[in-house]
Amino acid sequence: MNANRQIILKSRPDGIPTPSVFDLRRSTIPSPSEGQILVRNRYFSIEPAIRGWLDDRESYFAPIAIGEPIRCLAVAVVVASRHPDFAPGDIVRGLGFWEDYSLFDDTTILLEKLTPASDLPLSYYIGALGGSGLTAYVGLHDIAHIQPEQTVVVSAAVGAVGSVAGQVARLRGCRVVALVGSARKAQVALQDLGYDAAINYREVRDIKTAIRTACPDGVDVYFDNVGGEILDTMLVSMKPLGRIVSCGMISGYNQQDNPPPIRNLWEMVARQLTMRGFLLPSHAHSIPEAMRSLEDWVREGRLIALENKRTGLAQAPQLFIDLMSGSTIGKSVLQMEQD
Amino acid sequence: MNANRQIILKSRPDGIPTPSVFDLRRSTIPSPSEGQILVRNRYFSIEPAIRGWLDDRESYFAPIAIGEPIRCLAVAVVVASRHPDFAPGDIVRGLGFWEDYSLFDDTTILLEKLTPASDLPLSYYIGALGGSGLTAYVGLHDIAHIQPEQTVVVSAAVGAVGSVAGQVARLRGCRVVALVGSARKAQVALQDLGYDAAINYREVRDIKTAIRTACPDGVDVYFDNVGGEILDTMLVSMKPLGRIVSCGMISGYNQQDNPPPIRNLWEMVARQLTMRGFLLPSHAHSIPEAMRSLEDWVREGRLIALENKRTGLAQAPQLFIDLMSGSTIGKSVLQMEQD
Repeated sequence: MNANRQIILKSRPDGIPTPSVFDLRRSTIPSPSEGQILVRNRYFSIEPAIRGWLDDRESYFAPIAIGEPIRCLAVAVVVASRHPDFAPGDIVRGLGFWEDYSLFDDTTILLEKLTPASDLPLSYYIGALGGSGLTAYVGLHDIAHIQPEQTVVVSAAVGAVGSVAGQVARLRGCRVVALVGSARKAQVALQDLGYDAAINYREVRDIKTAIRTACPDGVDVYFDNVGGEILDTMLVSMKPLGRIVSCGMISGYNQQDNPPPIRNLWEMVARQLTMRGFLLPSHAHSIPEAMRSLEDWVREGRLIALENKRTGLAQAPQLFIDLMSGSTIGKSVLQMEQD
Repeated sequence: MNANRQIILKSRPDGIPTPSVFDLRRSTIPSPSEGQILVRNRYFSIEPAIRGWLDDRESYFAPIAIGEPIRCLAVAVVVASRHPDFAPGDIVRGLGFWEDYSLFDDTTILLEKLTPASDLPLSYYIGALGGSGLTAYVGLHDIAHIQPEQTVVVSAAVGAVGSVAGQVARLRGCRVVALVGSARKAQVALQDLGYDAAINYREVRDIKTAIRTACPDGVDVYFDNVGGEILDTMLVSMKPLGRIVSCGMISGYNQQDNPPPIRNLWEMVARQLTMRGFLLPSHAHSIPEAMRSLEDWVREGRLIALENKRTGLAQAPQLFIDLMSGSTIGKSVLQMEQD
């Protein structure tokens, strides 16, 4: 392979992305300048955050420009280095692009050298042992301060972050309730991930009543991955002094100009709630301990790393479209072709 | 006076209350049983929280029943006691009712014996030195953790709580910006309360732009008394890691069945914000220090206790209606007739 294939943004999506907003481009494999490394991408983290970057809207990152490759967290192998800290063969993680080869340097966001355990699949380091798992761990510990015996509700409960959050809360001795959008997901939550209860919000007549039945004493911690109507219902389901972890609000990602309204914020006062949003890079100090715990649990078989994996750069758009349609279970991982 | 006049709830209001939902009733002055004290009410705290209790809706307190007197925080003098901790002549504060005389006992919410400074007006102990001032102090310190040099925005900035919050934040070395609903209020904010800037949101063309102009580096702390559209705008005006103190959401109090929607909660994640609601009784441990600071500042003339005071029990409904119409400045205090 002597071209660098890239998947670029051809046009901005309206709502759930379609294949036509992406395009495949071939360019030459770049050479590293002083201070740069050339990496061969191995795994990409297909995640909802990407949807936000497709809109022409300033946020915590600049939007992806039309004609530019899609930004994405990657696990990659160094193939050439002009950076003193990296050598060929090193395995790294960093915010790269949907392409065969990328240039990384000290400005690359989240760039770090990985020391993956040899007895664990490398792909886990983009999912349960990557940003998704670390986000779940940090959210439960640094943001929610979970304690044993507490009732923890997780939305998108079998998704990349939710599937880890539910299992970690259970491992910490919490009672854990899953909010999911299909019968199949409810089954995975109960049978594979060990949730104590699962609510399929597309099926129940009244979600508020369903939550009250599953959590008769109220909810201590709500780990929110979806926002919108479910967040609105959770606001009236919390215990006094409860905590809401704002990890994601995927219900609005396909329609950022018209996100679903929240009407029950008064409960923040009446129930004395804390709602706190966070992004993983602000909690770097917590990552080493989180990493050790997650690796140990995976190795001991106590934490399942659910993956929704496909192979081949050309599959990236469809994998992302499936994710944004809400049909996936576990971490969406794109595995690049091997030589 | 040998009857006990009471103002009762005649019917439930729809929107801003009108005089017809209240009625005056005369009953006999009760006698204290064992463990009770009979108090003569001196000052009532006319506050937005009362509006919530007029609806037939469970919240942190039960709704006021039709035919029952209006629940209200009062400063009162003990006239007869069958409680070991209280003697005639003691001055107390507690959650009582719009009436001449009340019976208090150990179940009375917020009941405490006051030791008011002899050189300060007693009415201040229902306002700037009462729940309003203490709420402002606790919100800024325990909830927002304000630091010198921070930019603090206060809504309902010349109201009972806001007028103290703005002054205390300024005394702590913050830059303080007022959000108000009239030109007269903006003038009070700037000239009497020492705010660094004031925005009349009823007059500016675009509130978001006005906030950006007043706070070019963003907002560290938003002390929210109003919720609704202004909260929605503040969500896109906060600095990363900013804090929102949810003290009240008066924009929704007259229309709890249809509160104004919030659409920008995604900013909780993107800006890593913390929003935290609170009620004063949960922060009792902070009250002694808050009380000392507030009394000292008032005595030294560094904190102005703005009052909107009227005399006579029969004035209570109109004072409350004015408050809920948004036309008042400072703490609304009802002073009872003297013998």
